[in-house]
Amino acid sequence: MRFEITAQSANSRARTGELHLAHGTVVTPAFMPCASRAAVRACGAEDVAEAGVQILVSNAYHLYLQPGMEAIEACGGLHRFMDWNGPILTDSGGFQVFSLAAPKDLAEEGVIFRSPVDGQQILFTPELCMEIQNRLGSDIAMPLDECCPHPAERDYVRASLERTLRWAERCKAAHERDDRALFGIVQGGVYADLRELSATETARLGFPGYAIGGLSVGESREQMLGALRAAMSALPLDAPVHLMGVGTPLDIVDCAAEGVDLFDCVLPTRNARHGSVMTWAGPLRILNATYATDPRPLEEGCECPCCRSLSRAYLRHLFKAKESLAWRLLSLHNLRFYTDLMRRLREAIATDRLADLRSRLSAWTQRDRS
Amino acid sequence: MRFEITAQSANSRARTGELHLAHGTVVTPAFMPCASRAAVRACGAEDVAEAGVQILVSNAYHLYLQPGMEAIEACGGLHRFMDWNGPILTDSGGFQVFSLAAPKDLAEEGVIFRSPVDGQQILFTPELCMEIQNRLGSDIAMPLDECCPHPAERDYVRASLERTLRWAERCKAAHERDDRALFGIVQGGVYADLRELSATETARLGFPGYAIGGLSVGESREQMLGALRAAMSALPLDAPVHLMGVGTPLDIVDCAAEGVDLFDCVLPTRNARHGSVMTWAGPLRILNATYATDPRPLEEGCECPCCRSLSRAYLRHLFKAKESLAWRLLSLHNLRFYTDLMRRLREAIATDRLADLRSRLSAWTQRDRS
Repeated sequence: MRFEITAQSANSRARTGELHLAHGTVVTPAFMPCASRAAVRACGAEDVAEAGVQILVSNAYHLYLQPGMEAIEACGGLHRFMDWNGPILTDSGGFQVFSLAAPKDLAEEGVIFRSPVDGQQILFTPELCMEIQNRLGSDIAMPLDECCPHPAERDYVRASLERTLRWAERCKAAHERDDRALFGIVQGGVYADLRELSATETARLGFPGYAIGGLSVGESREQMLGALRAAMSALPLDAPVHLMGVGTPLDIVDCAAEGVDLFDCVLPTRNARHGSVMTWAGPLRILNATYATDPRPLEEGCECPCCRSLSRAYLRHLFKAKESLAWRLLSLHNLRFYTDLMRRLREAIATDRLADLRSRLSAWTQRDRS
Repeated sequence: MRFEITAQSANSRARTGELHLAHGTVVTPAFMPCASRAAVRACGAEDVAEAGVQILVSNAYHLYLQPGMEAIEACGGLHRFMDWNGPILTDSGGFQVFSLAAPKDLAEEGVIFRSPVDGQQILFTPELCMEIQNRLGSDIAMPLDECCPHPAERDYVRASLERTLRWAERCKAAHERDDRALFGIVQGGVYADLRELSATETARLGFPGYAIGGLSVGESREQMLGALRAAMSALPLDAPVHLMGVGTPLDIVDCAAEGVDLFDCVLPTRNARHGSVMTWAGPLRILNATYATDPRPLEEGCECPCCRSLSRAYLRHLFKAKESLAWRLLSLHNLRFYTDLMRRLREAIATDRLADLRSRLSAWTQRDRS
């Protein structure tokens, strides 16, 4: 893995870059759609490539539980399994273990939980987590971390981030593939000093890139930005930074201004399945009766398959009729919106016009976390 | 509309033909996937075209209830609404009114039912049915008919087919668009003499093509073929014939041998949503544990998007994870199977080798109506 900074904003920490990975180069800042179960919800790999997506995020926890490693290895690894030839970052699944699997026990060795798929008891350790990701063959792997809930007591968060650091060290030792990158993950909740401590100690372990986890879990926007700034202040400037699970268009612009290079979020595809369409005029609710006879595309000038040839009236009809085609089409539109957003963001950084881009997104301010 | 017979089998009534319609030419025998609500379930119009589909079947009843005529007209008619530039046949919705809408009253004037969408009381008449289809702009329209349940008493079936004949006459009078075709529909249940009577009288009214309705509704295979033969014996040889709602691969081959030119059925897409994949070796149940680590395509040599690059293991995983992408991919495979089946059927007719094709489908015999 190699990261080159191609432009540095004069009045913020924002920068553009090129991240060279085993399966190709990603221009940054980049948005990575979620393909947790080896598919972007409702979309095929060809669809996603056509929407301009450069890199996907998949998930060690989900794929380990189902379909399991044997299935994916029998097909030649995760890329060939899902027929996606671009880069893939895999999350360790720390967030999912703690939020979805209701862990039975959390110890120094690892975390014990029952599989929601077959009820089997599983001990998820840093070593297992690395073994899974090594076998998946992802371009970027993540260490096992504990993602604290919000709110959480300071003492709990501190003990947790220290264990996460010890787990990171074990993950680094267990990471086998030289051709693939392992990032470090910064935790620390909403406590600025703990974020700084976690970032300093994670950077001391030494990784080619860093992720900032445990944000966008219910804290306020100010708390999120404060925690992010504290973490960024202690991370090396020449390494790529991934802000996990963020976010809305406005969050992305504001966090890129803090120096973040990579983003991932379920928002474009989840919103699509809820009938919420992303446009430069703000969110468009497809079920709104206004659109029942509206022959216009979702957004003039958009190059997605919806906007090229389909009307709001047709998309509303499909969504109302609960045709799964609607989820796919609206997802492809929202993914294309993010592709366009990131392109404009990179242009704005390179020309020092972030404020202009931010004002174009003013329709999103009040619906920030919608 | 113009129909040319291009080859006639020497040892059966089977023939190949070209059906020239407002939106293009269909080579027959042809299979028409169902797009009742203006979309082939889970598939986009581009997908369907890529699967080799020539013509779609949509439905006046469904589209009238939702989204309604205003929405479709605002977008320039049904073809532009759903972005499908090929021919469309619309069923009147007679079958749906009687099977889905639990009619409150059936009278000479028409049939009264409550809309399952908004509970509004609707009087569906032959004239309304033609108005809807004229406004939709389908290439082939169907008259309003009563589709009798099975079993049904002979006297009921006879009275019903006579009313269907009177409705057909009213539909013919109400059909406005010279550039679009209106077919006649033959009813008569499983009674051979009533089928012959209905065919004779419908042909006497004079239509450019004929549909045979009310079969594949629970009768035996022998009853279906008997009723079909009786109807065919009284229809003009130079008009195209559509057997409505049929069927399985074997049904299609056997009914083509009786002279049927057009088929429609929900089987390929419904089976896909139930995880049943159509192959030349017979049905393949994707959830079968055998496929969990199977890197092979669904069918060697198939050109569908699944078989080009995806494994049985991946498709099983998507289906098990309830990813709607699985429904789309398996539907595209099954549609491609039907495209290949119809191509081989046309070749077999032209070279008088129907028996060979039938024996290739032997794996389907025991699972005929599955």
